[in-house]
Amino acid sequence: MSRIPTRIDWVREHCRLLRAISAEFARTRPFDGLTIGTGIHLEAKTVALLLTLRDGGARLVSTGNLNTTQPDAVERLRAEGITVIGAPTKDIRVQAGYLDEVLAAEPDLILDNGGDLFTTYLDRPYQGLLGGTEETTSGRMRLEPLRDELSRPILVINDSPIKQFAENEHAVGQSSVESYLRMTNRVTHGEEVTVFGYGACGRGVAASFRGACARVSVVDVDPVTRLRAHLDGFATPPRDAAVAHADLIITVTGARDVLTAADLPVLRDGVILANAGHFPAEIDAAGLIGAAEVSGTQEYAEDVLTLELRDGRRVHLLARGHMFNLAGPRPLGNSIESMDLGFSLQARCLEAVARGSVDAASCVVPVPASIDAAIARSYLDRKYPVTPR
Amino acid sequence: MSRIPTRIDWVREHCRLLRAISAEFARTRPFDGLTIGTGIHLEAKTVALLLTLRDGGARLVSTGNLNTTQPDAVERLRAEGITVIGAPTKDIRVQAGYLDEVLAAEPDLILDNGGDLFTTYLDRPYQGLLGGTEETTSGRMRLEPLRDELSRPILVINDSPIKQFAENEHAVGQSSVESYLRMTNRVTHGEEVTVFGYGACGRGVAASFRGACARVSVVDVDPVTRLRAHLDGFATPPRDAAVAHADLIITVTGARDVLTAADLPVLRDGVILANAGHFPAEIDAAGLIGAAEVSGTQEYAEDVLTLELRDGRRVHLLARGHMFNLAGPRPLGNSIESMDLGFSLQARCLEAVARGSVDAASCVVPVPASIDAAIARSYLDRKYPVTPR
Amino acid sequence: MSRIPTRIDWVREHCRLLRAISAEFARTRPFDGLTIGTGIHLEAKTVALLLTLRDGGARLVSTGNLNTTQPDAVERLRAEGITVIGAPTKDIRVQAGYLDEVLAAEPDLILDNGGDLFTTYLDRPYQGLLGGTEETTSGRMRLEPLRDELSRPILVINDSPIKQFAENEHAVGQSSVESYLRMTNRVTHGEEVTVFGYGACGRGVAASFRGACARVSVVDVDPVTRLRAHLDGFATPPRDAAVAHADLIITVTGARDVLTAADLPVLRDGVILANAGHFPAEIDAAGLIGAAEVSGTQEYAEDVLTLELRDGRRVHLLARGHMFNLAGPRPLGNSIESMDLGFSLQARCLEAVARGSVDAASCVVPVPASIDAAIARSYLDRKYPVTPR
Amino acid sequence: MSRIPTRIDWVREHCRLLRAISAEFARTRPFDGLTIGTGIHLEAKTVALLLTLRDGGARLVSTGNLNTTQPDAVERLRAEGITVIGAPTKDIRVQAGYLDEVLAAEPDLILDNGGDLFTTYLDRPYQGLLGGTEETTSGRMRLEPLRDELSRPILVINDSPIKQFAENEHAVGQSSVESYLRMTNRVTHGEEVTVFGYGACGRGVAASFRGACARVSVVDVDPVTRLRAHLDGFATPPRDAAVAHADLIITVTGARDVLTAADLPVLRDGVILANAGHFPAEIDAAGLIGAAEVSGTQEYAEDVLTLELRDGRRVHLLARGHMFNLAGPRPLGNSIESMDLGFSLQARCLEAVARGSVDAASCVVPVPASIDAAIARSYLDRKYPVTPR
Repeated sequence: MSRIPTRIDWVREHCRLLRAISAEFARTRPFDGLTIGTGIHLEAKTVALLLTLRDGGARLVSTGNLNTTQPDAVERLRAEGITVIGAPTKDIRVQAGYLDEVLAAEPDLILDNGGDLFTTYLDRPYQGLLGGTEETTSGRMRLEPLRDELSRPILVINDSPIKQFAENEHAVGQSSVESYLRMTNRVTHGEEVTVFGYGACGRGVAASFRGACARVSVVDVDPVTRLRAHLDGFATPPRDAAVAHADLIITVTGARDVLTAADLPVLRDGVILANAGHFPAEIDAAGLIGAAEVSGTQEYAEDVLTLELRDGRRVHLLARGHMFNLAGPRPLGNSIESMDLGFSLQARCLEAVARGSVDAASCVVPVPASIDAAIARSYLDRKYPVTPR
Repeated sequence: MSRIPTRIDWVREHCRLLRAISAEFARTRPFDGLTIGTGIHLEAKTVALLLTLRDGGARLVSTGNLNTTQPDAVERLRAEGITVIGAPTKDIRVQAGYLDEVLAAEPDLILDNGGDLFTTYLDRPYQGLLGGTEETTSGRMRLEPLRDELSRPILVINDSPIKQFAENEHAVGQSSVESYLRMTNRVTHGEEVTVFGYGACGRGVAASFRGACARVSVVDVDPVTRLRAHLDGFATPPRDAAVAHADLIITVTGARDVLTAADLPVLRDGVILANAGHFPAEIDAAGLIGAAEVSGTQEYAEDVLTLELRDGRRVHLLARGHMFNLAGPRPLGNSIESMDLGFSLQARCLEAVARGSVDAASCVVPVPASIDAAIARSYLDRKYPVTPR
Repeated sequence: MSRIPTRIDWVREHCRLLRAISAEFARTRPFDGLTIGTGIHLEAKTVALLLTLRDGGARLVSTGNLNTTQPDAVERLRAEGITVIGAPTKDIRVQAGYLDEVLAAEPDLILDNGGDLFTTYLDRPYQGLLGGTEETTSGRMRLEPLRDELSRPILVINDSPIKQFAENEHAVGQSSVESYLRMTNRVTHGEEVTVFGYGACGRGVAASFRGACARVSVVDVDPVTRLRAHLDGFATPPRDAAVAHADLIITVTGARDVLTAADLPVLRDGVILANAGHFPAEIDAAGLIGAAEVSGTQEYAEDVLTLELRDGRRVHLLARGHMFNLAGPRPLGNSIESMDLGFSLQARCLEAVARGSVDAASCVVPVPASIDAAIARSYLDRKYPVTPR
Repeated sequence: MSRIPTRIDWVREHCRLLRAISAEFARTRPFDGLTIGTGIHLEAKTVALLLTLRDGGARLVSTGNLNTTQPDAVERLRAEGITVIGAPTKDIRVQAGYLDEVLAAEPDLILDNGGDLFTTYLDRPYQGLLGGTEETTSGRMRLEPLRDELSRPILVINDSPIKQFAENEHAVGQSSVESYLRMTNRVTHGEEVTVFGYGACGRGVAASFRGACARVSVVDVDPVTRLRAHLDGFATPPRDAAVAHADLIITVTGARDVLTAADLPVLRDGVILANAGHFPAEIDAAGLIGAAEVSGTQEYAEDVLTLELRDGRRVHLLARGHMFNLAGPRPLGNSIESMDLGFSLQARCLEAVARGSVDAASCVVPVPASIDAAIARSYLDRKYPVTPR
């Protein structure tokens, strides 16, 4: 390679499962003659996935999602001969136009993210769609009622147990600690961290901060979940006490208005507020900024907004309540290996649909157990090679 | 109390949830006029449960299970006015007679353990059975096909998430470490422990030994489960390597013949073998003892059987492959609090059936979520009292 | 071995370092023609040490300490041909007579525990004493001012770094958790544990309970030590708050009156009090029992004393404030391996004195670094054998 | 503040101890009329220290160290009225000139880093030097033989226990994990990490990676230290096995040539090599790059150098063997709080010398215990305020 290597090269090199699948696909060509339409974030790790599909013989017609398209990823994909439609946009109507363009290519397979492509397809169907994959749980919930109309194999990646523990639990936990350190340069040892929500993501965030010697409290509206956190060794104080004692509060509940201006009176001076949940509505950023207690604000380049309270306390909000583990200077997102696992599920599921090894009954269903098993085995084989060097 | 207090008193005192339910039941009397037939282990913690039901107005007709009845528990129950049928027995026909005697009292509610009472009831039905509870998953599997015949509310305790994490995961993990220490007096720090099986119990055993500074390897036949263990930070070497490197091997898989005489050639000198799974078939004790490599055996009072191998190595088998966390000198079983949680589910579920707040559609189904939530809340309230002292 | 094996056999088998030293000593006979006088607890693990010295050619004249002599150990030692002087006693004058009898044998080497034998020797010296060892730090402090008079090699075992981390930190931590479980059968997960003192023992106790999913607070009078605990991830609340919130309080400070009747008003209902420090003065047991708030007491066979307070709360005191990790039913003490390490230091140090490889300048000094290194290497060699099986 | 806030502002805001000392110094003016000469890294956290000294009345004459001066720090210091001598340089003779300029100001107090200023002072002494501080252990070792000549109070900051656990252990551990994540975006869960060296820094690195669910092996030449690591729960395999199995190797020994080209044949494909020790000689970068097995190299912007081996394996070297926890894109160094602790020791020690509360006998000695205690108490008071809000 005479080109100067970039972070995209680094990522691709370390997507070992995808690289192995690429090598296999180059021989087996499961997508020969097929077009795959994709509507997924266009960034470094996605490049590794799309090149793998390309190596399997696919013609790719790809567009990004709202507001996440990274120019160097687009540039690289085009250099590799992949059709990329559109440009970074925050305009939902412009974005809808890009989706239309993807479907105008009448792809045989769809790789969807949130259900946009499949629902658009139902509005303007064409001949020959074999099926495809949906990345997200929210996409699954949107597509489930449409099973009768879709009537094709569509495999939902996020319902794989591997995604739950490798990405939602461990990778989000790790990236939350990493992002806190990167954005604030503050200590974790001895700090009091309150985590709102104790689903897979919340368990990962709580465990990761505990592993970094923080003292972690968990708040969850479900008492059974709270009991689980308690027996796992986390403090589970009443919500208001958990807010008042915290040096760092992370929301990862899926609910709205978990933290609002009503909490300002009890927050510790210097507290940091951050959201790791998908939607930026868990912390009411606008409400906090506009609260009567707030006399002024400061912005730091690290994507930190500091609220100056009239009584002298200061409250720091990371990424204005957007996912802080994808924000700040030089964001990294989840680890390469966790994405490699998730995207290998994508590649194998698309292969299964292309080969017809799943049928129309598998419409909006989880990843087949045999694919989960094969991916897991392949990941572990690297760690425990059968023939020692 | 002028009596000298015993361990049964100690246990009852610390079953705080049951004590609170007892106090409530003494006012609300949900079982007034009703007979409850029970077929469950008769030991210290069960006494606390049965006295709670008695305080709720129930007439109790109780018998134990095969080979687990403890005389001091029987004596105490009789002193408290509870009808106890039978005596400790290992004879399955004698035991069947005891079950018949319980059913001859035509109980209104049945507390079953393994499905024996309900299946016997179907053979010789009587008027007036309202329904009841089943403690175990194996009982649930036996009763599920009989739903049409049973056609009454029967709540399965073990399907509660609280049982899964509080008892199967945490309590079994804790009692495994406790029993290893109690039976062997050996160190945990730095020891290599191999855990077979990474379900709820296996996760608890693995985490508990890691918490005691052991280095833990996990073996599981399912590669997805193995990947989970790997990302949780446990070694997941090939099975044979995990056997050969271990200082302690614990089986908790639910399968048969996990460890057999075929493993003898590679076991470390001084290795300890123990089973924490329900059935004593995970370690083939007879096969190990009778193996050609074994030149002799020694028995210690601690329920340790030492196999002397011809090449000088020694292999120690705890409790002859029966659940070692209930064996050895002065066995303690699971923690009082974990049993208090599980038995409070029992008391509340029987109350729900007695009051008719679950109907016949709830035949062999999990504990209602509202009961789980109430028990969890009640456990946590003790930890975080609303009004500080 | 045709005898039925006992716990002493089990312990000796698992003192692997001592067994290897025994085998070597049987060839090299470092103590041939020498008498060793010992005044150390006579229990299962000491038997393994004394037999090792015997195998090295020593004639042994041994007596126990106040109130710790175990009859089965004495019986076994006598059966092995070792002279054991005296019987279990709590009378300090009777004990002094036993020490005189040991010294009447004019031993060439002394294995002392607390400085009793060496100080008695100075009162009535005899010809030919080569030197010896002292087990404890308190013995070292007693002997240091007497160096000019002693003027012989005397090696202090407890000053070895191995004793500090293997025994004081890890073994005391492990035996504290084990004893809490054994005596109370209560849960550790989610419990609030307060540890008084954060020296080597306190660090071990705190880490062991955290490893068992308890939430641990540390109290220490030294703010630098408290900061260390804080950054290690433990809560370090003000002393009174740490007392008021605890489910379990363990003292391990070396100081007196750490917990007294003055704490009764704030203790939680059901709290357990236990001391892991050497002296039984850390918890003022008499003061607690006699306090005005206490209306009665109950005793359990588990060496638990329950104080009934007039307001209904109950406070449980383990082992009446004596070292609870050596008390209760069927006490185990520290792990076999931790004692094997400490007693191997003893055996090697006595060998060094016998061979003259340390001189009179080494009077009341730590274990030579070369012995520490050899013992450590030997322990690890078992774990990582050079030639795999 | 109308200026746009910068990272220097953020750091200063979170140096809470220094801010409190600044506020006190502004009243008590311990340095009124005194000049302090400093030769310490000029970066964000040092700015907070120097401004605190300035607030205490000091005139400051400051220069940086070789190759670490940050322009924005210099700019800020000058804007605050502090004399900064020199500019970033890698030339040791230019640097010596800067030190001469500092001493030409005949400072009353010296804040030294490595002993450069004090040894230069001895060459060309002047009237009126009261004494000062030395930051490092290497500086202490250089100055100890010069005590008779120096004959003034000089306090060595790094010998404080607070520096040992807060900075050397915890902060280096945390920054190592942070830097690994920042530079590689790879997973920690399940990875095999080998740490060379188990002193305070090594213990911190090992514990931090374990807390992030890595499996950690420790290599140390001292068997007693290795036994400690073993009982702490880390694997301690033979050195060569630890090298061959690792996904990540971190050196933190203080020794030279810990990893060399001789290790290339056994390294895993994809292994990452990083040094966290002070000197860049632990990994022989030049030897690795020039080895016969290496067919080519690649450089990534993340300060990663990839060696391409002739057999296809790839080995990644971070920061070319320099301290990787201070390298790569956007390096953060140790946490703000850990530096706040260390620099507060500096401020209080200089105050003690200025006030004459330590005398000439305290020449090259540790921080007085009373200062350690006061700093620790002050850090913890923030966490447990006496009067709750």
